[in-house]
Amino acid sequence: MGDNDESEIIEHHDDEEMEKRSTPRNQSHSFVESVTSSEKDGHRSTQSSHRLLAYSDALISIIATVMILPVAHTKFQDNEELKESIQTLLTTKVAVYLMTFLIVTVAWAAHIRLFQVIERVDDTLALLNLACMMLITFLPYTFSLMATFPENILGILLFCACVMMIGLIQVLIVLYGFSQPFLLNDHIQMSQNRAYYKQHILKVIMRVPIMCFFASIFSLIFFQLSYVLLAIIIFLPYISQSLKWIWSKAIGGQVDDSPDSMLFYTYHPSEPLSKERVEAFSDGVYAIVATLLILDICEDNVPEPSVVKKQFDNNLTAALREYGPEYLAYFGSFATVGLLWFVHHSLFLHVTKATRLMGLFNTFSLAFVGGLPLAYQLTHEFPRGSRNELEAVQASCVIIFFAGLFQLAMWVSALFTERETLHPYVRYGGREHAFMLAKLSLYPCVALGTYFLTCILSRFSAPIFHMMEIGVPFAFLLLRLLVRVMLVLLKWLFCTGRPDVDCFPVEEVDPQLPINDIVT
Amino acid sequence: MGDNDESEIIEHHDDEEMEKRSTPRNQSHSFVESVTSSEKDGHRSTQSSHRLLAYSDALISIIATVMILPVAHTKFQDNEELKESIQTLLTTKVAVYLMTFLIVTVAWAAHIRLFQVIERVDDTLALLNLACMMLITFLPYTFSLMATFPENILGILLFCACVMMIGLIQVLIVLYGFSQPFLLNDHIQMSQNRAYYKQHILKVIMRVPIMCFFASIFSLIFFQLSYVLLAIIIFLPYISQSLKWIWSKAIGGQVDDSPDSMLFYTYHPSEPLSKERVEAFSDGVYAIVATLLILDICEDNVPEPSVVKKQFDNNLTAALREYGPEYLAYFGSFATVGLLWFVHHSLFLHVTKATRLMGLFNTFSLAFVGGLPLAYQLTHEFPRGSRNELEAVQASCVIIFFAGLFQLAMWVSALFTERETLHPYVRYGGREHAFMLAKLSLYPCVALGTYFLTCILSRFSAPIFHMMEIGVPFAFLLLRLLVRVMLVLLKWLFCTGRPDVDCFPVEEVDPQLPINDIVT
Repeated sequence: MGDNDESEIIEHHDDEEMEKRSTPRNQSHSFVESVTSSEKDGHRSTQSSHRLLAYSDALISIIATVMILPVAHTKFQDNEELKESIQTLLTTKVAVYLMTFLIVTVAWAAHIRLFQVIERVDDTLALLNLACMMLITFLPYTFSLMATFPENILGILLFCACVMMIGLIQVLIVLYGFSQPFLLNDHIQMSQNRAYYKQHILKVIMRVPIMCFFASIFSLIFFQLSYVLLAIIIFLPYISQSLKWIWSKAIGGQVDDSPDSMLFYTYHPSEPLSKERVEAFSDGVYAIVATLLILDICEDNVPEPSVVKKQFDNNLTAALREYGPEYLAYFGSFATVGLLWFVHHSLFLHVTKATRLMGLFNTFSLAFVGGLPLAYQLTHEFPRGSRNELEAVQASCVIIFFAGLFQLAMWVSALFTERETLHPYVRYGGREHAFMLAKLSLYPCVALGTYFLTCILSRFSAPIFHMMEIGVPFAFLLLRLLVRVMLVLLKWLFCTGRPDVDCFPVEEVDPQLPINDIVT
Repeated sequence: MGDNDESEIIEHHDDEEMEKRSTPRNQSHSFVESVTSSEKDGHRSTQSSHRLLAYSDALISIIATVMILPVAHTKFQDNEELKESIQTLLTTKVAVYLMTFLIVTVAWAAHIRLFQVIERVDDTLALLNLACMMLITFLPYTFSLMATFPENILGILLFCACVMMIGLIQVLIVLYGFSQPFLLNDHIQMSQNRAYYKQHILKVIMRVPIMCFFASIFSLIFFQLSYVLLAIIIFLPYISQSLKWIWSKAIGGQVDDSPDSMLFYTYHPSEPLSKERVEAFSDGVYAIVATLLILDICEDNVPEPSVVKKQFDNNLTAALREYGPEYLAYFGSFATVGLLWFVHHSLFLHVTKATRLMGLFNTFSLAFVGGLPLAYQLTHEFPRGSRNELEAVQASCVIIFFAGLFQLAMWVSALFTERETLHPYVRYGGREHAFMLAKLSLYPCVALGTYFLTCILSRFSAPIFHMMEIGVPFAFLLLRLLVRVMLVLLKWLFCTGRPDVDCFPVEEVDPQLPINDIVT
């Protein structure tokens, strides 16, 4: 395409980078890595893929989340019981939402994998990536078709066609990337067996479209089973590798690894996942969930001028008072989404490297966060004091509980490999560690407590629930104080009279230690 | 709040940074700056504000754009003429959209300014920022109230209350930041007259809430004028400074600058604007616009199973064929949004520093991009071949034309101060410069051409328009070739027989020059 001049620019950079890489790498302290990589980004800003990836993350996160809107917009009949309407919901719309969320995050994981191999972009790659994005955004429509017409094969065929085209575009991207080696990851670019890498990556990528091709042919013969087949095709590498990993952890045996280890496309749960992109994707989901709420408010809660004239004698304040609970619900839900983001943000401040397993838990957590607009809709839909209202509050608690719980799971899975994934000062036993744990367990605890409260107290209502949601930020502000008080209290309880026993190393950690010792 | 340990961590970093800053700075080559700043980010990752700002950008960009949905969802009557319905639209919903977009971007600009002063965050600041975001997301609702009930002062009062609370939170953030100096910008942190900075910033921030307070009192007396007053309050600093700047450019006189120059809160058009945040905000807008389209498709274009049974004899393909034009419209619109993002992305690859003026043009461009879902809705709403369809295509052309034109304006304004804002190899006269100009002018030219085509050809229809939209990416791929051919052609036309004249320095630029010479 006549990109010669650009390639020259980039090759110049690469020379510089190679000089810089004389310092030994791969020593598994990611601090140094993050510093050097950010240094390099400063140099190659002309063709860095950073912004392309940020835009893709934003697109994918919005697509993943936005399918909650049709669910939340489903109207409930008041005379019906909530449980029944939830069941009618569950049949199609929630299924579409969850399918979309999962498949889109799988596509997103594939996208991460691809652009961990190809680290620089040019115009052609940017356009190819846009085409890929266009097809990914079309996936939710195929799910809508599948869910509405489960007996028609058109939905499956469309889905298979989309996946095949996405696969072909990815193959094109890989071929183009390997034809212009300066676009590649440094590790592969310098490697002797670049051809092997190319073959391996192409093989992994081509697997899905080829199997989709067979699935679409199979669907013409016996379409009911093709749903199962599709699910297997897409999740198989993850499931098999996860099982293998769990097996190896449980038994303790070693996973057989080839000596010339592939860094990417291994599907190990400990395969590195770009931390930046996990953050960007999560930010997108939290942001769109927070703003879906105000969109509903703006569309539904502005009264008609004629209604105000007739029913309220032109008294707008009285008309708006009708919507009082909904404002409360909005502020409560925004506070919850904001604080879940805040916890996620605090968590990732301490994380130096993300793994696949953490990414999986993150996806589950985000899928529940995406359900919050539904909770918002439920809690203000029903008349106050009704049995339905109580059940709506309980549903909200369940959603918040699981969103928080999977964040906690992410933290626990990070602790399992804390040497690689965590900053030294938050590792098990530090004071920051205790504080982080308290932050993470606050929401699950509050949600669980509220759930049991609703079981005991029959007069628990949605406004009280939303007031609680708004009150939680202050709990976060006080948390550090509380944790400290509790630690001192525990110390006092257990260690009085035994000054010789060093029973709480938590308090003994030298606060001067962190970071600098590692960097220098 | 007991943040002692963290503050110690950060102060440690600052020592390191101070050592590093022994190299002379402020030499206005932003390459070096970008490198050193990214180096620093690597170190202080524990409390870097990067992700907080990215999340805020995502929230604000979605809020700014999402108000186009009520506009796009307005139903048109087929028997009515398009012009009439556009006029009924213009009255309220478009006004709400534009007001929201402008005010929200003003709030965003204030947010950038604030967090250019405060460069690091802790938990308290993160929570304060979330409270600020919650109030900003509530602003569109106050506009909806204002637009629906223009004669009721409740909307104005609510808006003033929100702005005052946002101002107070910003004051709190500044006070907290100056009480913990390690959170501040390095420049201010090292400065002798930190107290002066604090006073100046507080004075600028307090101006808006105080004037809003008076405006809300004034609205009780004579509310019609308070709209004007509010507009003046919010845009006054921009307008006055822009006029001053234009005046100084036109006359050539010097703007009086105090010797101890404030870097921030000056409201000069050349005041620096965080390039990263402009990119993040733009990405958010482009992403949400691209995905709003598929949401409409998923909600509206899945036929009812009963309808398919009755009207199409269970033939889903036939039922979906009805929607054919809408799929075309979707792919066409996605291609347009994607390519406008692509042009924006290419433009910012060449930009080293963004200024207020560029930010202003960017805002205008994005406001038109946000109008694209409306264009999408218009072009498939009307029966084919009707007069309305032609007018809908024209409206789309106008929207695309202005979106592209303001991108071009951004580029031109960057060229005016090219020494500070552009990479050296794209400055006026380079080959990359010609290519960038061609990229930027492609969309305005195509849109203008299509507009005139619709005037001449009466049989021009929406499907042809969308096919054209899908075809544009190939134009981009061929563009580099075309530009080169054209330059050679021009050279051949003008320079044949005059080998002594160096008439096209464009081709003579040494491709080896860029970047490295500047960095080293």
